[in-house]
Amino acid sequence: MQDCVFCKIINGELPAVKIFEDNDSIAFMDIGPIVKGHLLVIPKEHYANLADTPAEILVKLIAVVKKIAAAQKKALQADGVNIMQSNGRAAGQLVDHIHFHVIPRFISDGHHWNWHPQKYADSTEMQVFGDKIKKNLISHGEE
Amino acid sequence: MQDCVFCKIINGELPAVKIFEDNDSIAFMDIGPIVKGHLLVIPKEHYANLADTPAEILVKLIAVVKKIAAAQKKALQADGVNIMQSNGRAAGQLVDHIHFHVIPRFISDGHHWNWHPQKYADSTEMQVFGDKIKKNLISHGEE
Repeated sequence: MQDCVFCKIINGELPAVKIFEDNDSIAFMDIGPIVKGHLLVIPKEHYANLADTPAEILVKLIAVVKKIAAAQKKALQADGVNIMQSNGRAAGQLVDHIHFHVIPRFISDGHHWNWHPQKYADSTEMQVFGDKIKKNLISHGEE
Repeated sequence: MQDCVFCKIINGELPAVKIFEDNDSIAFMDIGPIVKGHLLVIPKEHYANLADTPAEILVKLIAVVKKIAAAQKKALQADGVNIMQSNGRAAGQLVDHIHFHVIPRFISDGHHWNWHPQKYADSTEMQVFGDKIKKNLISHGEE
């Protein structure tokens, strides 16, 4: 897609440090790493987000994510890894070409995700949220 | 696995608000939501993390994540969604049974991921990281 920086990387119009490529996907270094060694895994076809990405592409991407995460952990002797995939500006997505962040983590890396769990008022409130989501599930047959 | 809280939820030994279940996976409400409506998607079989989860299970999980995220967005009229999957204490993993967080996001939800990109010293440093990771990739044949 024109004006998509990730499509330009795929087409070779923009430089990137690629570390993996197959028929459907590439993995390359994020130039603004949360922790050094941070990678991105993207499909070669342009899909904006999770909802737009066909299941057959998604399953290939997650297999690449697993492979890349293993290599990253081994290469950097990381203590852990975060996989993050953001959809929409409200979620922090800045490039509208689906991407999985693969972020190496170290006990001493100093990064914190600002993980502050909220509380539901009571179990009824949680159930109400759950029921609402359940009602909007598309059954297997309709997919 | 004994003493695994997610296995206990699967077995019905601990309560949870389940919103989806099939042969391989369940989705249920996170009791400590980052944003209300926050869900977890897990396999029924116990695997500690991404590295331990067989590819055939992983592809099923990501398909469920996509389905659940769509229902969540529609039900809550969310502006976005974050998918997060953490491996190891250094990455924030607290329960050693692989789980995908599906977190609804709203422009006004007040949550921030503390996303502070670092910079590589120069393009050589980024290349060195990339080369190291690339060298540790297992080829398709070896998997």
